[in-house]
Amino acid sequence: MPQRLKLIVAYDGTSFSGWQSQASGNTIQDHLERAFKDVTGQQVRVHGAGRTDAGVHALAQCAHVDLPDRGLPTARWLSALNALLPPEIRVLQCRTTGPKFHARFSATGKVYKYRVWNAPILPPFERNRAWHVTAPLDKARIDATAQRFVGTHNFAGFAANRGTPVESSIRTIRTLGVRRAGALLTFEFDGDGFLYKMVRLIVGSLVRCGTGKESLVEIVTRLRSGEAHRARFVAPAEGLFLLRVRY
Amino acid sequence: MPQRLKLIVAYDGTSFSGWQSQASGNTIQDHLERAFKDVTGQQVRVHGAGRTDAGVHALAQCAHVDLPDRGLPTARWLSALNALLPPEIRVLQCRTTGPKFHARFSATGKVYKYRVWNAPILPPFERNRAWHVTAPLDKARIDATAQRFVGTHNFAGFAANRGTPVESSIRTIRTLGVRRAGALLTFEFDGDGFLYKMVRLIVGSLVRCGTGKESLVEIVTRLRSGEAHRARFVAPAEGLFLLRVRY
Repeated sequence: MPQRLKLIVAYDGTSFSGWQSQASGNTIQDHLERAFKDVTGQQVRVHGAGRTDAGVHALAQCAHVDLPDRGLPTARWLSALNALLPPEIRVLQCRTTGPKFHARFSATGKVYKYRVWNAPILPPFERNRAWHVTAPLDKARIDATAQRFVGTHNFAGFAANRGTPVESSIRTIRTLGVRRAGALLTFEFDGDGFLYKMVRLIVGSLVRCGTGKESLVEIVTRLRSGEAHRARFVAPAEGLFLLRVRY
Repeated sequence: MPQRLKLIVAYDGTSFSGWQSQASGNTIQDHLERAFKDVTGQQVRVHGAGRTDAGVHALAQCAHVDLPDRGLPTARWLSALNALLPPEIRVLQCRTTGPKFHARFSATGKVYKYRVWNAPILPPFERNRAWHVTAPLDKARIDATAQRFVGTHNFAGFAANRGTPVESSIRTIRTLGVRRAGALLTFEFDGDGFLYKMVRLIVGSLVRCGTGKESLVEIVTRLRSGEAHRARFVAPAEGLFLLRVRY
């Protein structure tokens, strides 16, 4: 009997070419699909809640997969998959779910964290886990600007073109928390959905605001315009973590 | 005029062959000495507070170096060294010090942390940063045994032979803190000095105690005997962090 499995997956994105399957075969989706194929002998499609770019991390990405026939009892999939996957990818949960659950279309929101290390020296253990910004950042200024992104907006000015047309660039950011703990500055985005590179484009602008290179007025004008801009400042992938997918 | 520099160095030990210089050239000491040579044109010797093994990390190793003549103003060494070193090694501080200061012989103590991840699945971000122990550990049992190590003992039963004779295997552990936060179990050792592999041998026994494979009485008997034992359980290098050197 066919079954649909729901997976919670964590990965260190450093050495992968992102989530979505590529000819190279070195994406999270490719590794998961190969692990399923190794057990079932069949090519299956793993559907993620969203694609993450090369270098982006996840603490709890969500995915589903339909297995044509029961390769293993559900309880054994977790250890079977982790035995086959590289250690940078771990399946944290694996459960059967109903046919109505879809990792992408059932999602009601996502939570992302972006980490910035704001000090002259990047400690070895922050490498590939944070964006290293040496210029001093004004946290109060950043936070004031960040709060203008909260709410429902047309985020066209903070989205990259993926090649595929998006029906609408209107999204809602429920909260955007900005916190500083020593040299670590974190941005936590909770929203109903995010356009391509939206989090990294917003963080890129907020950091420019924190160094005084861009003003609150310039950034808010760009947000309100609802138009794509050529001058874009994309924060690097290594600081971005998908924390949670809401259903 | 010759000058002595005191360095505070952090490193992710994963991809290095430990602290001490080797023919391979891939040790922390080798990388530091090459960086000094690149600037001064002269071969210098970097003296560490202690050697760490391959895979062991440091948040604040201490070292000193005598520079035959002033290659750079002191204030510029920090950025010069970090520009030449691999990103897994960072010099956090660099100051001139008097000729009486010796990184190893002036040290009055060291603080080490050992991290154990005690859960069925090792998260990707704990890879190379913790010992993955899947069997459930009894924290109360471990802590009771750990406290027997505090004080002044002959630690011969918890030391590996380095090839070089040690005058005395008597050391003092001031405190040994055992903490659990979710799946993470940490051991923090504060002592006047540690024999070769002493922290990893004590943690190895404490974890065996936590799984019930060894009893408090067996471990304390071994400690009190002051004799080397053949059966030794060395916790792996990747969980060990040198936190601080006391002067």
